[in-house]
Amino acid sequence: MTFELTKEYLSRIQDAISLHDATTLRAEMDALYPADISGILYELDTEQARYLLTLLDNEVGAEILANLDPAVRLDLLATFDSAELAPLVNVMDSDDAVDLLNEQPIRVREEIIGLLEDREQARFILDLLHYDEDVAGGLMQKELIKINVNLTVNACIEEIREQAENVEKVYSVYVVDDVGKLLGLVSLKKIVLARRTAKIADIYDKDIIFVETYRPVDEVAEVMQRYDLDAIPVVNVQGRLLGRITIDDVVDVITEQAEEDIQVISGLSGEVEEDDTVWARSKVQLPWLIAGAVGSLLAATVINGFQSELGKIAALAAFIPIIGSTGGNVGIQTSSLILQSLADTSGLSTPPGRRLLRTLLVAVINGLVVGLIAGLYTFLIGQPRLFPVVATALLAVVLLASFMGTVTPLLLNRIGINPAVASGPFITTANDLIGIGVYFLIADLLLAEL
Amino acid sequence: MTFELTKEYLSRIQDAISLHDATTLRAEMDALYPADISGILYELDTEQARYLLTLLDNEVGAEILANLDPAVRLDLLATFDSAELAPLVNVMDSDDAVDLLNEQPIRVREEIIGLLEDREQARFILDLLHYDEDVAGGLMQKELIKINVNLTVNACIEEIREQAENVEKVYSVYVVDDVGKLLGLVSLKKIVLARRTAKIADIYDKDIIFVETYRPVDEVAEVMQRYDLDAIPVVNVQGRLLGRITIDDVVDVITEQAEEDIQVISGLSGEVEEDDTVWARSKVQLPWLIAGAVGSLLAATVINGFQSELGKIAALAAFIPIIGSTGGNVGIQTSSLILQSLADTSGLSTPPGRRLLRTLLVAVINGLVVGLIAGLYTFLIGQPRLFPVVATALLAVVLLASFMGTVTPLLLNRIGINPAVASGPFITTANDLIGIGVYFLIADLLLAEL
Repeated sequence: MTFELTKEYLSRIQDAISLHDATTLRAEMDALYPADISGILYELDTEQARYLLTLLDNEVGAEILANLDPAVRLDLLATFDSAELAPLVNVMDSDDAVDLLNEQPIRVREEIIGLLEDREQARFILDLLHYDEDVAGGLMQKELIKINVNLTVNACIEEIREQAENVEKVYSVYVVDDVGKLLGLVSLKKIVLARRTAKIADIYDKDIIFVETYRPVDEVAEVMQRYDLDAIPVVNVQGRLLGRITIDDVVDVITEQAEEDIQVISGLSGEVEEDDTVWARSKVQLPWLIAGAVGSLLAATVINGFQSELGKIAALAAFIPIIGSTGGNVGIQTSSLILQSLADTSGLSTPPGRRLLRTLLVAVINGLVVGLIAGLYTFLIGQPRLFPVVATALLAVVLLASFMGTVTPLLLNRIGINPAVASGPFITTANDLIGIGVYFLIADLLLAEL
Repeated sequence: MTFELTKEYLSRIQDAISLHDATTLRAEMDALYPADISGILYELDTEQARYLLTLLDNEVGAEILANLDPAVRLDLLATFDSAELAPLVNVMDSDDAVDLLNEQPIRVREEIIGLLEDREQARFILDLLHYDEDVAGGLMQKELIKINVNLTVNACIEEIREQAENVEKVYSVYVVDDVGKLLGLVSLKKIVLARRTAKIADIYDKDIIFVETYRPVDEVAEVMQRYDLDAIPVVNVQGRLLGRITIDDVVDVITEQAEEDIQVISGLSGEVEEDDTVWARSKVQLPWLIAGAVGSLLAATVINGFQSELGKIAALAAFIPIIGSTGGNVGIQTSSLILQSLADTSGLSTPPGRRLLRTLLVAVINGLVVGLIAGLYTFLIGQPRLFPVVATALLAVVLLASFMGTVTPLLLNRIGINPAVASGPFITTANDLIGIGVYFLIADLLLAEL
């Protein structure tokens, strides 16, 4: 059904590249979709990828470049000069062109824009370069079909014909007034079914969902998902139509956001892939490991302060792992629930006080159950005098970790930091540390012999 | 721009419901999109929601029901009898109708299907009920527009006109032969621009991406995302066109999958929301907490076995937290990288041997750094004789946790279990346990006085 890259196929392509066999390569690539060729480029070295790319039509090459992972693209494009890149950027969708240009040094960016044959494309790009990549303006493309409200269906079809090459996906035609203010839309289905002489004013849909350029990208994603939209028009504060965002770009945003959240929860400090170099991976893994180590060494300091207690009752050490891991697990669970509810904006949001109360009630139940299990275990290892210490400490730890797991993401969210970090190893370690302090303090309080 | 639910608005609606003020409610709901009304239903009790829903047109009601969270929907629909539900199911998209019916008891399901006025809808539903929900067949809808290859653009437009009400989103018209085999498609844009008398055979696009009914849903999502598709046709093994999957449903699948992964990584054993009842939350959190507790109590047994060692050198206990947390953190990082690369099927997959080798190289670097930091700390607390023990143990722990973090998700994936569980607290605790065993064994080996 779809193309699947095999070792055999890849080595055939690599052989053809080393022989500079342009005919074979063109024929092979002709049978593939651009997205599949992107997959092949990942497996080639930069020189091979460059050679293959230069064999292809500009349209195909542009689409491949738009698909490529930014890190790979940057390496690959370093071997191209501005005169080689301009024809590719010339035929790209404006949003993809801007993404690509934003990765380049300012000098190269300006050179390429100066070399663009399509001056409308150059204007589009200059417009889009103003926006941050995390707002609607940074995600939109300028390619869209719009029509003045005073025209007819026939004029509309002519406009589609004229723009057909520039605008790949047409879901609907946007309707604007004389100053370009967005009034509504006509779906392509309606245009197919309408009489050619019908007036746009009579048939267009005034009930339209749009976003302003400054809206955050995740809000755009949420709106498009809630209303099942294929594309959403983007307007400025005066309501003038500036561009549109299509669902495929939003799908990419959703996927990236999910990957980033998982990365943060997993304690990876940056984007990295499993097949990156050993150094690249180590660089991303080490910061959290070191932060975690420092946290645990603080816990070590606490434990070291209770050496004389441990000297008297060595079995106290046996419960250090359960105190630490329970605190960590409860913290992750709680903050993950808060994260999920922060992401869901469809209903009314719960007031923080009520959240906390409910979470603490859950914590009481969970703390009592886990405390009881661990408490019973003290009998098993013949240390029943530790029962009250272990049970009380676990209840306290579950309560504290639930509190931290609720408050931390809410606070981070308030000050504009990705609240997913609250589920990361850092907080886990903080809970670990607090838990151990509480454990030994309770031991000191409850055990007469210490 | 879009509707935002406020407390004031909600209490106005609730007042109108308690007064049975149908006129006000109909007027208010008329101004909203179905997705917004769904948001309101979440905040109402079942009786209020039922009343509001019965006031609305069937088309609007059907769309609201299709949007609703299954748990809420089940409660709400328990107050409806089959004769009340049938008119709503009658006008739903077939895929949504099947999702809703699958939640109902078989008796209700058959009653409703029997009561459907639209017999084509009944046939659609009976067709779709055969498929599991996690394959393409379970995600597809029967509503689509198809045309015989021997007809003309004009016939195609007539077909669109006839189906316009049933098929909400038309991206393209699928082209089939006399036995219904999928041959290709014509985009709606092409239809708008084509001459009415043009033959479909001359203008249709033969180069088409499709899926078979039995393909797993995540494969469908990956394909649609890779090729930026708005809809994908679904065929049976003979290549006959059976339905289509639209991008909005795939976006929902992607979002749910991401939420589920984060849930699993966070140690929540089932779907739960922060504002569920205290019991519901505890039920989902406790299984992992207990599993974690049992793991940590095994670690306690190990530590308890080294009581005499701890009695001699109480400071050994101080490094229990860093051993445990480092093992856990490395395990999560490694398995999360493997997960990410399992999800990415665009290139060649790395052979397991090479993965492991690279991961272990990263582990050597990370283990040496963390081991050194903790080793230096032994001097700080005046326990330099613990330096070789702590440093060696940490290196061993990082290596072991990296090994486990690589192998576990690969094995789980091979035997068909969601590999995200390898990042969960269970594996973290397993790493914790192994780490502590290794630590005390190394202490026994290296410290002459034990």
